[in-house]
Amino acid sequence: MKTIETTVALDMAEAEAAIRGALGDQGFGVLTEIDVAATLKARIDVDREPLKILGACNPHFANRALQLDPSASLLLPCNVVLEPAAGGGTRIATVDPRELMPGEAMAELAADAAARLGAAIDAVGR
Amino acid sequence: MKTIETTVALDMAEAEAAIRGALGDQGFGVLTEIDVAATLKARIDVDREPLKILGACNPHFANRALQLDPSASLLLPCNVVLEPAAGGGTRIATVDPRELMPGEAMAELAADAAARLGAAIDAVGR
Repeated sequence: MKTIETTVALDMAEAEAAIRGALGDQGFGVLTEIDVAATLKARIDVDREPLKILGACNPHFANRALQLDPSASLLLPCNVVLEPAAGGGTRIATVDPRELMPGEAMAELAADAAARLGAAIDAVGR
Repeated sequence: MKTIETTVALDMAEAEAAIRGALGDQGFGVLTEIDVAATLKARIDVDREPLKILGACNPHFANRALQLDPSASLLLPCNVVLEPAAGGGTRIATVDPRELMPGEAMAELAADAAARLGAAIDAVGR
């Protein structure tokens, strides 16, 4: 699956604060948050590497996507995943919206969303 | 996009309570909840039909999926969407996990997740 991603020399908490700020600058609010490692530990006593999933949503894009195709609700919000990078630091990744929302009707919107998500991830990566 | 869905003669709140119970019976917890209509109203003052997205996750399936392919984090949790049905009542829909997680390695797991989501949605539909 095609992603938009970066690796930053920050720990998970610092990277999360940075990407939340950068997403906000691009008009994305973080509507949901799943601490996957804590959830799996609590629910089925599994120990695993840290992994966090933020659900980011730009309300203008979401509204337009739902107008173009109501089934876009099945794919909202955009997951922004944080996890330790193999060589240290934190990897921040999201699916390229053009991958999840193909088709001509969605093309412009998906490209715009991809550009803004990319800008947020680039801002943290600098 | 291929969905697993039903329409029930319940209002949104009743349907949500029913699907939460049925998902729980199939081992899925609801980890996130987005009231899309309320969010769009609050953020950009848009009025639209009610729409709610529950993020459902079966920790055993999620753990196994992440072991098979760490990029599964980009697609978790499973969206379960509730909205008014055209003819009255509430439509409950989820993407078929086999659609989002194709490939041989994921085939058995995705089929099992689809069966359990289907069982939850069928239980509410009866």
